Amino acid sequence: MAKGEAQRYGLGIDLGGTKILAGVIDLDTGEVLATAKKKTKTKQGVGELLSRLGDAAEEALATANLKTGSVMSVGVAAAGQVDPERGVVIAAPNLGGLANIPIGESLSERLGLPVRLGNDVQGAALGELHFGAGRGSDRLLCVFVGTGVGGALITNGVLDSGPTATAGEIGHLIVDVDGRFCGCGGRGHLEAYASRTAMTRRLLEELRRGRPSILRDLLKEEGIDDSAPGGTAIRSGLLAKAVSENDGLTLEVLHEAARYLGYGLASVINFYNPHRIVLGGGVVEAVPSLVDLVSPIARREALPVPGKAVEIIGSKLGDNAGIVGAAILGSKAVGK
Amino acid sequence: MAKGEAQRYGLGIDLGGTKILAGVIDLDTGEVLATAKKKTKTKQGVGELLSRLGDAAEEALATANLKTGSVMSVGVAAAGQVDPERGVVIAAPNLGGLANIPIGESLSERLGLPVRLGNDVQGAALGELHFGAGRGSDRLLCVFVGTGVGGALITNGVLDSGPTATAGEIGHLIVDVDGRFCGCGGRGHLEAYASRTAMTRRLLEELRRGRPSILRDLLKEEGIDDSAPGGTAIRSGLLAKAVSENDGLTLEVLHEAARYLGYGLASVINFYNPHRIVLGGGVVEAVPSLVDLVSPIARREALPVPGKAVEIIGSKLGDNAGIVGAAILGSKAVGK
Repeated sequence: MAKGEAQRYGLGIDLGGTKILAGVIDLDTGEVLATAKKKTKTKQGVGELLSRLGDAAEEALATANLKTGSVMSVGVAAAGQVDPERGVVIAAPNLGGLANIPIGESLSERLGLPVRLGNDVQGAALGELHFGAGRGSDRLLCVFVGTGVGGALITNGVLDSGPTATAGEIGHLIVDVDGRFCGCGGRGHLEAYASRTAMTRRLLEELRRGRPSILRDLLKEEGIDDSAPGGTAIRSGLLAKAVSENDGLTLEVLHEAARYLGYGLASVINFYNPHRIVLGGGVVEAVPSLVDLVSPIARREALPVPGKAVEIIGSKLGDNAGIVGAAILGSKAVGK
Repeated sequence: MAKGEAQRYGLGIDLGGTKILAGVIDLDTGEVLATAKKKTKTKQGVGELLSRLGDAAEEALATANLKTGSVMSVGVAAAGQVDPERGVVIAAPNLGGLANIPIGESLSERLGLPVRLGNDVQGAALGELHFGAGRGSDRLLCVFVGTGVGGALITNGVLDSGPTATAGEIGHLIVDVDGRFCGCGGRGHLEAYASRTAMTRRLLEELRRGRPSILRDLLKEEGIDDSAPGGTAIRSGLLAKAVSENDGLTLEVLHEAARYLGYGLASVINFYNPHRIVLGGGVVEAVPSLVDLVSPIARREALPVPGKAVEIIGSKLGDNAGIVGAAILGSKAVGK
């Protein structure tokens, strides 16, 4: 544990549904020295995915002018259900339904480094805790709004995912007992109202029934078929564009999502009294004003004392939260 | 700290809106050696209330054939907002609106013992943790259904009331963003659906519009005016009587409350993954079948893994949870 510079760098890999982002991170400062990006391409199976992960890692190292021996460890934050002990992604609907992906074994063999695996939300939360908007908070809730609504609790610097690993998952908080069905099969979950998927569904429904909106043109420009069902057509960038053009329909749907998010946060503020809430994820990155919409609703709906005490702020690491957090996660594989 | 038997007993006082219950507790076994009961009578002011608390304590000691020197400490669990440091009940809507009640100072002067103050929910939760249904759980949520819906989190044996003291307060979880207003001023809170107060409101409304129910006769028998507004007319005992007679209206309202409670618990199971949930309080004591109504709903609505893992059981100490927990709380005033 005392070979000079070698201890100070770590590889962090963010394995998402559409892209793999690998980065070389200075573990003392959180600085991102170099990154490499690959498409995930799950259709070609587990072998191809593992090979792409290794390629991305080596490319990031090469860009940083470093050899594998110069980094101490590898961390992977994956969009799926992981078994950290075995280093395996057990199930991943967002990774084309691939299952039992032996990432730990594959990468440690290829790179000759210790590898540690976590899920994407935990990775991003660790990143924000160590080098982002979560610094210094001993009772932190990170909330990520993207395809879904993810969340993680960090108490006294330690991820608290509970005995069954869903603690912090604010997306499955019930905000309306008579409400919409969630992708998970549950009823009235926050994710069914405040995720990009939920917003997209609402927007497409409104477009279909003829509501005027700039989105119709934007979707046409991008060659997206707005008559198709499903909830992924409208990416965060498109939302941002429509918001920047003051599109009435988009603002209406965004405000609706913000209202549910605000009530969800208030519910958790009342029940758990987090010291700070960090809002991040693709939608918040693309539309940072969402934080300013959500925060006053959360405070208004919370009990006065915890509502006044809590800080609600936007994430600071943005898209890099995943690789920074993954690298920190990886560094914990060493010396343990 | 080593005077033989003297260390083994503690006084616990449960200060509620209608009655003061004092008990002498064996701190090693949780056994209740003797109790004394007084009416709270808040109308006669703070001085009278303090004197009644002292009287109840001394009466319990006398009944147990013990002198004040034979107990090591006094704990008080009060139905109000407390400042444990100063030993003062700051505000207490349930204690006739009395405020700044210097219980610690008054009792320690009168009894010559160290006194520690907590709120009623925390007291009952500590009781269940040490000698009741919470034993051995390292991630425990206690939920008390009575005038309100109270709750307390106990993690690794320690009350976790959060930095602003409402952590665990499941009554202010938001279960319907468009829902009923809560006594606290918030919207859609669980307490507005599942407390005895909420059930009473619903029952009285239905009686007023002519729904047949045995409650009409029961209220008449007890001389209670069912045409008056407010939510306290129907006590838990009356509910229990109507349930035991299979009264349709009462069962309907009870099932409705159970549904909201089940969803509320599911929400917390998803977000926090408690290892065990203990359900207690006046309504659960009077109608224990409520646990069997709530539990399957909570499991059904929770995510599969945490929903399967959690234990949901009824409290074991019943009405004594408060005095037992208060005595434990009091014992922590010694040697600290």
